[in-house]
Amino acid sequence: MGIRIARYVHAGTTHWGVIQNDAVLPIDGAFDSLAALLSAGKENVLSKLNSAQALPLESIRFVSPVTQPARIVCQGANYAHHRAEAGLKPARAPFNLIFTKPDSALSGAQDHIQLPSHVKLLDYEIELGLVMKTKINGPVQVTKENLHEFVAGILITNDVSARDIQFVEGQWYKGKSYRTFCPAGPYLYLLDPEEVHHIHNLDLKLWVNGELRQSANTDQLLYKPEETIEELSRMMDFDPGDLLLTGTPGGVALKLTGEQLEQLTNPFLSGDQKLALVLESQAENKSYLKNGDIVRCEIKSPDGRIDLGFQENRVVLA
Amino acid sequence: MGIRIARYVHAGTTHWGVIQNDAVLPIDGAFDSLAALLSAGKENVLSKLNSAQALPLESIRFVSPVTQPARIVCQGANYAHHRAEAGLKPARAPFNLIFTKPDSALSGAQDHIQLPSHVKLLDYEIELGLVMKTKINGPVQVTKENLHEFVAGILITNDVSARDIQFVEGQWYKGKSYRTFCPAGPYLYLLDPEEVHHIHNLDLKLWVNGELRQSANTDQLLYKPEETIEELSRMMDFDPGDLLLTGTPGGVALKLTGEQLEQLTNPFLSGDQKLALVLESQAENKSYLKNGDIVRCEIKSPDGRIDLGFQENRVVLA
Repeated sequence: MGIRIARYVHAGTTHWGVIQNDAVLPIDGAFDSLAALLSAGKENVLSKLNSAQALPLESIRFVSPVTQPARIVCQGANYAHHRAEAGLKPARAPFNLIFTKPDSALSGAQDHIQLPSHVKLLDYEIELGLVMKTKINGPVQVTKENLHEFVAGILITNDVSARDIQFVEGQWYKGKSYRTFCPAGPYLYLLDPEEVHHIHNLDLKLWVNGELRQSANTDQLLYKPEETIEELSRMMDFDPGDLLLTGTPGGVALKLTGEQLEQLTNPFLSGDQKLALVLESQAENKSYLKNGDIVRCEIKSPDGRIDLGFQENRVVLA
Repeated sequence: MGIRIARYVHAGTTHWGVIQNDAVLPIDGAFDSLAALLSAGKENVLSKLNSAQALPLESIRFVSPVTQPARIVCQGANYAHHRAEAGLKPARAPFNLIFTKPDSALSGAQDHIQLPSHVKLLDYEIELGLVMKTKINGPVQVTKENLHEFVAGILITNDVSARDIQFVEGQWYKGKSYRTFCPAGPYLYLLDPEEVHHIHNLDLKLWVNGELRQSANTDQLLYKPEETIEELSRMMDFDPGDLLLTGTPGGVALKLTGEQLEQLTNPFLSGDQKLALVLESQAENKSYLKNGDIVRCEIKSPDGRIDLGFQENRVVLA
């Protein structure tokens, strides 16, 4: 059975630990990165657990188990329902849409999401995050059967997005890259090889102030993890501890008709015109995140065998 | 006066060195990253030069002085002439367009540019690259006067781009991220503080098979380095050794009318339709890179005081 790797702050310092029975057991010895911990291996980590120092989860603050430096590569428009609400045709596109977020966007499962004062359309996107296991520096063949050779573990991620910046500027990087725009965790579920198949059948749920907004299953992913990693391996490198976000399902705040999306992507309209358009199109939409809102995310397998815990992040005006 | 920091392969191993009088002098001691070398400082580096082991430049192969891991952040559409040839209004946009490349795209000034077999429209983009000097983890004020506190040095970069992927998929990351799509160097010119003003007055020139294709000066940059770094500091972190690409001037192979760009960005057209459109629009355009082409890049100040050397990369079908 897999183990739950946490990175947390207790009494002012940051530690690695393993969660067992609602307590966190510190791991003796220092790992200066997630890659170093992954390289040590599960048995080694378990042999270093300090049971005498077990801490109740209430006494710690989780920080991102994905450490810097890390590449964060993201799939866009990878669920049919989300494609439709964004004004796209729901069917799988003929290409796997890829963008990135910077590692400085990473934050913990209980950290505030800092809303920049100039951002007017702050949105949420629950996504299954995959942590890479091995160095990839050339093309690899990835199948459902050997996926465990490439994916070390999984965690909850939230691809927080400022829509008024994302759509006005065309390239999505800036609107998705502010600090705290990538809550990750609470912990990394380190998968045993025989558990990796669960990646294809996990329930994702996101609530805002207790209202369920997103609910889907990873069996709906249009581009699957195995084909995505294989495709990316033909293009770029990965190191252990890098992060792949697999896309968000329907239910985000953003709602665009095809006509609105067409206007927003028209290169003849100025940035100011696009900003006015996107603000007008979303003016009656009360779903965007405001100062004080609480975003809760959960991911687990329907049979309950895999449980990635929950995030609960408060939106705070920066 | 600034110094020219090279990273190179000689007799099968990789070294750091300083170029003096058409020879490279190895730096004694190991620096496992560009950040470590920058942290040592210019005087320290100069004190470790091994003059007895000086090597002629012909005997070495340059590799990228920017080492992994590094964030590579790029400005798009940042020269008026390039905006116009890409179908955009030439005036400065109301926003600073930002995207990224992965550090695995880095390659050396003499390395081959590997043309993926499925790419049909391979393009070049000479750009001034800025190497970051300090850790940035919050908003900073950057002016022409204090720019030297944030920029350690400058080098030639080429933002190699597969247009048939970049424009069909909307997000630019994939089309610009293949391995070898970011030749960097030959060396990093480590600027003395009083030389930093040269950043605003450097001539960029790019040739394909001896034909001059791009020729411009960095005084034409629409979003200046100081305002760009200040803006990015409000969003994301930087570490010493990270790389900022400042955008390419006119003269790339890509030539789009506004109407063509509008079609290529229309979300109602399928990826296949867009691919057909971009291929058709460029069908008579003989400027794209082919197997065997040689791309040469130079950047220097008009007064000759700053000279970033040259890149000469052969395009080779992968």
